Amino acid sequence: MLPFIRSDLAKFSAYKPHPGSSTAEPVPSQLDRLDTNESPYDLPPELKEKLAWEYQQIIETNRYPDGGHETLKNAIALYVNESANLAPSFFTAANISVGNGSDELIRSILIASCVGGEGSVLIANPTFSMYGILAQTLGIPVVTVGRNEANFEIDLQAADKAIEQTQNPPIRVIFVVHPNSPTANALTAAELAWLINLSDRILVVIDEAYFEFSQDTLASELPQRPNWIIMRTFSKAFRLAAHRVGYCLAQQQLIAILEKVRLPYNLPSVSIAAALIALQNRQLLLKSIPQTLVERAKLIEALSQYPTLQVAESAANFVYLRLKPNALNQEDDYLINLTQKLRTAGTLVRHISGGLRITVGTPEENLRTLSRLQTALTNL
Amino acid sequence: MLPFIRSDLAKFSAYKPHPGSSTAEPVPSQLDRLDTNESPYDLPPELKEKLAWEYQQIIETNRYPDGGHETLKNAIALYVNESANLAPSFFTAANISVGNGSDELIRSILIASCVGGEGSVLIANPTFSMYGILAQTLGIPVVTVGRNEANFEIDLQAADKAIEQTQNPPIRVIFVVHPNSPTANALTAAELAWLINLSDRILVVIDEAYFEFSQDTLASELPQRPNWIIMRTFSKAFRLAAHRVGYCLAQQQLIAILEKVRLPYNLPSVSIAAALIALQNRQLLLKSIPQTLVERAKLIEALSQYPTLQVAESAANFVYLRLKPNALNQEDDYLINLTQKLRTAGTLVRHISGGLRITVGTPEENLRTLSRLQTALTNL
Repeated sequence: MLPFIRSDLAKFSAYKPHPGSSTAEPVPSQLDRLDTNESPYDLPPELKEKLAWEYQQIIETNRYPDGGHETLKNAIALYVNESANLAPSFFTAANISVGNGSDELIRSILIASCVGGEGSVLIANPTFSMYGILAQTLGIPVVTVGRNEANFEIDLQAADKAIEQTQNPPIRVIFVVHPNSPTANALTAAELAWLINLSDRILVVIDEAYFEFSQDTLASELPQRPNWIIMRTFSKAFRLAAHRVGYCLAQQQLIAILEKVRLPYNLPSVSIAAALIALQNRQLLLKSIPQTLVERAKLIEALSQYPTLQVAESAANFVYLRLKPNALNQEDDYLINLTQKLRTAGTLVRHISGGLRITVGTPEENLRTLSRLQTALTNL
Repeated sequence: MLPFIRSDLAKFSAYKPHPGSSTAEPVPSQLDRLDTNESPYDLPPELKEKLAWEYQQIIETNRYPDGGHETLKNAIALYVNESANLAPSFFTAANISVGNGSDELIRSILIASCVGGEGSVLIANPTFSMYGILAQTLGIPVVTVGRNEANFEIDLQAADKAIEQTQNPPIRVIFVVHPNSPTANALTAAELAWLINLSDRILVVIDEAYFEFSQDTLASELPQRPNWIIMRTFSKAFRLAAHRVGYCLAQQQLIAILEKVRLPYNLPSVSIAAALIALQNRQLLLKSIPQTLVERAKLIEALSQYPTLQVAESAANFVYLRLKPNALNQEDDYLINLTQKLRTAGTLVRHISGGLRITVGTPEENLRTLSRLQTALTNL
């Protein structure tokens, strides 16, 4: 080990980007990529053309980007207020911080609150893996609790106990996803009541990455909650995963801290321009959402016909399924095989936390998902 | 103060992006922006057209970027080897990590080595401010020493003493810029000997952001130095400040750690594509360097005529000047006035560390710099 590197870093393994492309297994060249919850649709050609024009005519590549993000933050505030039926000035630019994807925002939140032995993090598994991974890279202890196996509600009793018993350092941040990934469930009434009743010495981060699919946001709560942050992203419904833009909403005092911590030029000029154009054309881009919800319902219905599969309700753009209890032995081996067979047939899905997470794709992709799954299940 | 935020964060103030645009003073709409050491030249139209085409035809905005960077890292290795006259396989992709600007790399280095009370950082002021700022955001103690006022060499005696006396936590990382910003001087023989003789328990970060202007690199040293990292950027000579791409070179074991710490999708697809196109067309882009060096010499010569100004030698794309000792009282007020007068006349320069840092611009910009400076000095 290198003597100037923190010894605890050796233990931990990093997030694997693009798990689909990291195996040596030969795969068809045209894959249905349903393993990362992206939108199946690129930006429409007219918007790409507009951005290409802006790149050629307006953006000077030799100049640093706008490090203040005011225009983008104003546009985000407008969208957030409108989409949550809030007054036009409910949120302003002062309530928003923008990041290089949500990943950078998660890191900033952890740096601002927990680094240096000041706090631990609480998460309920299974959930989005980056909270734990980014905490570990910063040497921040991660306390985990489980979820109810039936509806994936957080084990709130265990969470209360963990908060009570974790003292050195105490729990300073709790991350929840609404709806959760990979399990696809929105926060329940009990979870919400629990979050509201938490001590205001604990920062509550609510990741609404899939808000546009759930249409369920806690944004209107923020004026009463100085210890809440809502995270959002342009990587899912807004089709901008390639551009890496996330944002968060909170009271001004908390945002001011995150702005202090963020890298000054964290967003390339093209990413800022793309997010702005996406917001200006939000009606066009979000028009595909109802179809995604219809397709999701069809997928869930079709998958629920299999006697061995237990398919969860979904409030997001993906479905999550597990094998029914006692349906089979060696569940994980079975799912690894199933994932592999689907991959060989041309559909990438994510084997995660003892289940399969399958992104809702185009209608054609979803039909292939069902037919390939049927073939694979027959041959296992 | 919010109870879940680290109390030490309140004390510290963030890096101000674009200082030129943050004042309320009215300024001409067409400014010579010579305050951030950017290249004065945008990418040539044919390259922007190529990138715009690639954006429209190849890049899928709805898909996450390549999180592995292999193609880009191979191209960087090729360029580094070639530009330092090294064997074609001297550096490979395994020696390279790519960041969202050098800022992200600095943060990763600090996270990997010092976070959690494991190390302090040593810098010699004046130098690039982000080392200290990013360390402070992470709660890492920053120890500073000065420089020789004549040639801006690091006060090596003071540095040795600081290393000896800093024990809780010890110095784990030293940042130097080669050539330094804002003082424009390359590392001296004495500084280099000192760096080589440092304990290998201390990580040495050599920021070669201005390498293409100095043509002076320590890359060939790396096989003997497991504790050295060289940082580079596409934001200066390669004209890609808007795209935010930096990289670092080191031995494989150290790079593997930085890859573990970095955000998995840290570079947008367009930034990756832009860096690749810039490398493929490096001869075209770097053709402007000799002119910049000629212009730098002319600027230094002209500025040296003023009896009150002390102009430093420069190995970078900017010049640094101070007032001669005892030339005037209230030096800082004088320089603030001078900076302001230049700004009103249409030239942005950086007032920093008791001097002025002026980027070498186009020949026309440099002529204006000299004439505006003459007018301003006459009227002060």
